[in-house]
Amino acid sequence: MNQSVSGSGSLLRLIRQGRASTRAELIELTGLARSTVAQRLEVLRARELIVDAGENPSTGGRPPAVFAFNRDAGVVLVADLGVTHCRLAVADLAGRPLAEMAADLAIDAGPEHVLGWVRDRFAELIDRSGRNMAEVRGIGVGVPGPVEFATGQAVHPPIMPGWDDFSIPGWFSRSFDVPVLVDNDVNIMAIGEHWMHWREAAHLLFVKVGSGIGCGVITSGAIHRGAQGAAGDIGHIQVTEREDAICRCGNVGCLEAMAGGTAMARALTNMGIPASTSRDVVRLARGGNREAAMLVREAGRALGKVLAAAVNLFNPAVIVIGGDVAQAHEPLLAGAREELYRRSLPLATRHLRIARSELEDRAGVIGAAVMVIEHILSPAAVDRDLAAG
Amino acid sequence: MNQSVSGSGSLLRLIRQGRASTRAELIELTGLARSTVAQRLEVLRARELIVDAGENPSTGGRPPAVFAFNRDAGVVLVADLGVTHCRLAVADLAGRPLAEMAADLAIDAGPEHVLGWVRDRFAELIDRSGRNMAEVRGIGVGVPGPVEFATGQAVHPPIMPGWDDFSIPGWFSRSFDVPVLVDNDVNIMAIGEHWMHWREAAHLLFVKVGSGIGCGVITSGAIHRGAQGAAGDIGHIQVTEREDAICRCGNVGCLEAMAGGTAMARALTNMGIPASTSRDVVRLARGGNREAAMLVREAGRALGKVLAAAVNLFNPAVIVIGGDVAQAHEPLLAGAREELYRRSLPLATRHLRIARSELEDRAGVIGAAVMVIEHILSPAAVDRDLAAG
Repeated sequence: MNQSVSGSGSLLRLIRQGRASTRAELIELTGLARSTVAQRLEVLRARELIVDAGENPSTGGRPPAVFAFNRDAGVVLVADLGVTHCRLAVADLAGRPLAEMAADLAIDAGPEHVLGWVRDRFAELIDRSGRNMAEVRGIGVGVPGPVEFATGQAVHPPIMPGWDDFSIPGWFSRSFDVPVLVDNDVNIMAIGEHWMHWREAAHLLFVKVGSGIGCGVITSGAIHRGAQGAAGDIGHIQVTEREDAICRCGNVGCLEAMAGGTAMARALTNMGIPASTSRDVVRLARGGNREAAMLVREAGRALGKVLAAAVNLFNPAVIVIGGDVAQAHEPLLAGAREELYRRSLPLATRHLRIARSELEDRAGVIGAAVMVIEHILSPAAVDRDLAAG
Repeated sequence: MNQSVSGSGSLLRLIRQGRASTRAELIELTGLARSTVAQRLEVLRARELIVDAGENPSTGGRPPAVFAFNRDAGVVLVADLGVTHCRLAVADLAGRPLAEMAADLAIDAGPEHVLGWVRDRFAELIDRSGRNMAEVRGIGVGVPGPVEFATGQAVHPPIMPGWDDFSIPGWFSRSFDVPVLVDNDVNIMAIGEHWMHWREAAHLLFVKVGSGIGCGVITSGAIHRGAQGAAGDIGHIQVTEREDAICRCGNVGCLEAMAGGTAMARALTNMGIPASTSRDVVRLARGGNREAAMLVREAGRALGKVLAAAVNLFNPAVIVIGGDVAQAHEPLLAGAREELYRRSLPLATRHLRIARSELEDRAGVIGAAVMVIEHILSPAAVDRDLAAG
């Protein structure tokens, strides 16, 4: 392996992170010889991974050349697939969507149908963005169930019939010769929210309260998937000893049976207030329906109990709450804060920030883009690509 | 900064990890030029951080020189301070204790008294190990309360009067010019157990069930301390809605109020069975006392509820259970497994291993040694030391 190639990826990372934009800064940060840095920069420039960004006139003497990461050195295709909805995008290598769309799409139509439809939309989005398929560097997909990240296969996904053990990367490899990464929808939302709004927070929990409830765990700035890719599945943590809170998982007292949108819609219907989805619950709560508001507040308390346990175990700097139900934010967050502060240790909540998702429906596609970009632009991957010519 | 120095720390890490023991292996792993590797190895050899380990005759041709990390290139001093007991050791740079001792020591005697006593014992242990104070490369201390890791200060430690905001590194700096790292006792136990027995498991929870209850969280092979160093404080997670389970923290229904050794001893005393410490509870349970055995089993169930939540959130590969109460392991682990498997998701428990601590009382000193060694032998620290001469 060529030595100048082998270190170029690390230099690119420092440039992408905004830690260096001149040769002198790279020499300072890496301790490498001037000639080595120059040689590695030349490799990056020849592949158009960096571009000149003018001169820096502020330092006196001959102004040093300033360079920047070339966010246009390719694009990524991303899909955030929910149970009944999806959002797709083409993004540049900084994770900025160049073209995007949202649509109804039933995940239970099965992988061939769903992915075929997604591929056709990808082609349209590429056209709309003014780019072309040859520029695609990677594909990122989020799905509403547990995923074995290493293989990109959903694992016993209860709400994704037909997807069990189906290889999503294998399917895309028929049409694309690029890395395909798959993760569950909450993890990609956590990555997106963290990347766009909370990058300085090393430890973050992103909680999605929609039809179901899940959590993305960011530790030391990276997503924590756990030993089987099952981390963050907080919807079935027990929050009550009440025997009537029956959950779809077969247990009683689960968080999802108290605070999931589907469970709340059913509870309202049983009270004679027709509701069928989490969006109905939110519409009623925001519209001033007292029963719905009380239910959402009680859901917030149940959520707060689980968050208190999560805070005691994990001590995050930030908790971000997203998903449909979070849009009824006042009673939900009030209930959650109430139990969270009642049951957590003062040391762990002293500086804790609790925030609503800023990206809302777009967290998933942005996170999927970031996931793929971090993978294809990791120092090892860059060095491998450069060595391969 | 000298280039050959700046990369030596990374080579040392590969050698310490057992990933390379010849020049050819280092060239293969790093992609560096042969001359660069040779130069950096010379620096490590001159400082006695690596030693020759004979030749490797198996590869044919001229046998390559084999080298190894020099575990005798210094020693570390470590102390695991509990509420009423302590354990101290001198360890080599592989974390192997060369001399150690255990003694009664009341943490509430205050920092000056406790640390003065520890320093005197360190001097005796150094003598016993046949080494000398000039060889000390670092000091590691565990304390029974939350610690702000960056400063080495205990933070509002409820059972450590007089230690609040006291700088343990500052105190040792009067006598030693070496890094001093401080962490809470459960974190160092988790590090020790992981390093010695579960290094292949990326994600591990170590639960200490003693007078109180705490948890050390290992993620991606490293301790997760959380935003304020408060991670793992699971003793005050709510496990019951019973109003009579009053905890010392002022809340009701905490895990520690059900399963902590102190709480169980009080419960037995209230039943007319005298017990004052967690060790009494264990002695009674192992001796066939039915009330004690039932109490420990119920404690196990309470622990299992918290572990189920932790497994759903964090999805560890291994849970290790240690501490005094864990020595009554059969009823405790039976109860814990019962609730854990009842309340966790099948995907997360399919390959989960639940084990007792192997190191038991020694987990803390070994973990403290590993914590310090990983710090002083990190690539950046080694490069800095070498550059300083």
